[in-house]
Amino acid sequence: MGKGKCGIERAGNGTGAADMKRRARVARIESALTRGAEKYFQEQGFVWVPSVPHIVSVTGACENVNTLYSIDYHGREAFLTQTGQTALEEMIQGLEKVSTIIHSFRKEESVDNRHLTEFPLVEFEFRYDPEKEDGFELLLQNMENTICSMIGNVLKTEKESLEKLGVDYSRLENIKRPFDRISYDDAVKLLDMKWGDDLRSELEGKLMSIMGNNPVFVTRYPTHIKFFNMQQNACNPDIVNSADLLLPPGGEAVGSAVREHNYERLIERLDKSEMMKNLRSKGKDLKDFESYTNLVRDNPVPHAGCGIGLNRVMQYVLNEKDIRKATPYPMNKEILY
Amino acid sequence: MGKGKCGIERAGNGTGAADMKRRARVARIESALTRGAEKYFQEQGFVWVPSVPHIVSVTGACENVNTLYSIDYHGREAFLTQTGQTALEEMIQGLEKVSTIIHSFRKEESVDNRHLTEFPLVEFEFRYDPEKEDGFELLLQNMENTICSMIGNVLKTEKESLEKLGVDYSRLENIKRPFDRISYDDAVKLLDMKWGDDLRSELEGKLMSIMGNNPVFVTRYPTHIKFFNMQQNACNPDIVNSADLLLPPGGEAVGSAVREHNYERLIERLDKSEMMKNLRSKGKDLKDFESYTNLVRDNPVPHAGCGIGLNRVMQYVLNEKDIRKATPYPMNKEILY
Repeated sequence: MGKGKCGIERAGNGTGAADMKRRARVARIESALTRGAEKYFQEQGFVWVPSVPHIVSVTGACENVNTLYSIDYHGREAFLTQTGQTALEEMIQGLEKVSTIIHSFRKEESVDNRHLTEFPLVEFEFRYDPEKEDGFELLLQNMENTICSMIGNVLKTEKESLEKLGVDYSRLENIKRPFDRISYDDAVKLLDMKWGDDLRSELEGKLMSIMGNNPVFVTRYPTHIKFFNMQQNACNPDIVNSADLLLPPGGEAVGSAVREHNYERLIERLDKSEMMKNLRSKGKDLKDFESYTNLVRDNPVPHAGCGIGLNRVMQYVLNEKDIRKATPYPMNKEILY
Repeated sequence: MGKGKCGIERAGNGTGAADMKRRARVARIESALTRGAEKYFQEQGFVWVPSVPHIVSVTGACENVNTLYSIDYHGREAFLTQTGQTALEEMIQGLEKVSTIIHSFRKEESVDNRHLTEFPLVEFEFRYDPEKEDGFELLLQNMENTICSMIGNVLKTEKESLEKLGVDYSRLENIKRPFDRISYDDAVKLLDMKWGDDLRSELEGKLMSIMGNNPVFVTRYPTHIKFFNMQQNACNPDIVNSADLLLPPGGEAVGSAVREHNYERLIERLDKSEMMKNLRSKGKDLKDFESYTNLVRDNPVPHAGCGIGLNRVMQYVLNEKDIRKATPYPMNKEILY
């Protein structure tokens, strides 16, 4: 254990010889996971967009408006990005498939084994043809394939690092595709929780345990608790065509959805969203989303995408409950390099 | 041309159909360059460190202390990174070769064809054995090979995009290795400038023109105008073992150096640096660099590295004088996505 800038013990990111050895092994695995994702994207014809902006207006920062870092950008209020989703969505106006790895920033006050203030987020968006293809199924396949390519690349190149870290990797060799799925509705019944509530961390743990501690998609969340541009289900507007991937022991590792490409519905959803209500109290309005919504108005493209929290996949690979031990650079409010 | 958030014309990053087509082609080339770099790193055994922190103390932000974006990080003053160099240098304590692609942030007030406020920076650091190897020569070879792998990958995969953008790529097919070199001393004589001055943009242009508008390394800069951890030349302490790569028409595309791994010399250089003088006036002192300097004290490792400005390489590939047209997401003080 080393000490952070303010004298607080760092969890597994010290600079003594033993700590550096451990961090080096963790870094090798993080590298292999990242390359495994990129390998899949390249094979599948995704275009890598490394220039997705990290200083953004509120459109690029709307994962959770309560955990935004704000910054004075030449006299204007700006934020550090939480997701490159809307930028990638802009790029699929001219490209079929795009991917990136951004740094996602969250102003988390909690210093614990689940929260980081900054972490790599692997994101992709792709077009689909609703006449010929099922966007939702394609989305889940792309996520499964990306995750399996990530883990496959670790098994191909970093078994020695896993062994030296004491990780039993037989779990990883036996992942079956397709991943298990459970609808939000069924999860609610199984967990005896209230319909409409989000799956808290403890409930995620319970659900993963019931499902055999394998990767599991939780599908079709309630519309009102999810991001405004997630497409509503055609048969039931109370749910969206979304899927969160839970990976033990960390829980939610990927958030994904088919995106809404109908302009009128998009504007209505945005207008009535909890996020917009929250943003209005901070002086923002629909106009702040025009650069995004106008794209959908002018050139509606059916598409879907996701964001993969790299360190949650790391936790799965390492079977590590403490996210701070699942990256060579764990960031929280007490740590500043 | 589209319009930015504040109604100002955007240079080549609008969202009309023609603009989106152009941006898509530019994005394809940016993707191919990035993958070309990563291909070389992977072949050579570099470990990719995607988690290099972007919110940092002054140690991670010391490219130019006058262009730092500051941020309130849970009550502490922090900055947006300008280079991941010191983080990568920490990682080579446990690894031989490391690389990353960060977002580099510069609080540039100029809105022109040369400045961006945010851009991808491809960085690597590697160890060498001074008993057997010439660190400086290895550094220049690694840079040449990375740049050639980047450009080679564009030629392999994106000739059609280059053609549609009207780019004559025969220049790129005829790059010869090794790249030309000129010492700073010789450049001073050639350009009739004062020894000790930095090469301004106009002089870079003149030098590139004299050298035939090919890639050219300008080597061994004056010690006092370069970063404190660039190794002094053994025969002449007034110059450092550095090399900047100029690529026409943008100019300086890569900064590099063999790093100082002698603790006493490092501390003395830091203490007497112009940067430290500047930082002291902002209330910082040597202690703010301890997390870095203590690493060198406890485990001195001979190493060298560089940072490659992706959009400057893009300018070279596109033969484009305006950096804003050399990325799908040009960022300057007037643009906020």
